[in-house]
Amino acid sequence: MGNESCLFCRIVAGTIPAEFVHQDERCLVIRDINPQAPMHMLVIPREHLESLDDAAQKDEPLLGHLLRVGARVANDEGHGESGYRTVINTGAGAGQSVFHLHVHVLAGRALNWPPG
Amino acid sequence: MGNESCLFCRIVAGTIPAEFVHQDERCLVIRDINPQAPMHMLVIPREHLESLDDAAQKDEPLLGHLLRVGARVANDEGHGESGYRTVINTGAGAGQSVFHLHVHVLAGRALNWPPG
Repeated sequence: MGNESCLFCRIVAGTIPAEFVHQDERCLVIRDINPQAPMHMLVIPREHLESLDDAAQKDEPLLGHLLRVGARVANDEGHGESGYRTVINTGAGAGQSVFHLHVHVLAGRALNWPPG
Repeated sequence: MGNESCLFCRIVAGTIPAEFVHQDERCLVIRDINPQAPMHMLVIPREHLESLDDAAQKDEPLLGHLLRVGARVANDEGHGESGYRTVINTGAGAGQSVFHLHVHVLAGRALNWPPG
């Protein structure tokens, strides 16, 4: 388990210290170091999946869990009423910069359209 | 099952005709009528969930399925290499305009950051 060359695997392993907004047996949540909104969280599965392309049918409950954890964190931070956006980038061309699947959760300002 | 006042429930029921890019027992995929990228699909569950806030733990496999179907469609349309972005808006302030949960899948151009 875990990939020493992967930034998020090192955060999961505790090799790189990070403050967790939430953690459970399947995922953890940190604040994006380059936030694009007043609230910008990353929901990161403990298991190393490179991207959404790497997720198999058996991973569907995990993927759904990541989304629901994102929803819970947004609500816990007081953004349930104003709303929030969850985003997954797959591939460098779509903006994926860490090749360990993660969900961005943004809230706290008007979110424009198109989404990037 | 189904809500006559819900646009997407009517598409699911066949009351409003639509061309399905994909369909299975849990969801269907249509093209967004106001596309924000060369490929812009909507993955819509057959079951009426108002938003991600409305999803329960039992819905986690469904949520994951929606993401994986989005990934499959993006790959089928030839965007596996260049990448794609999946987006869920929760709440009007985040851009949700139809209150039946759906996943946007965008590809075919450079996707900018922030995501809206």
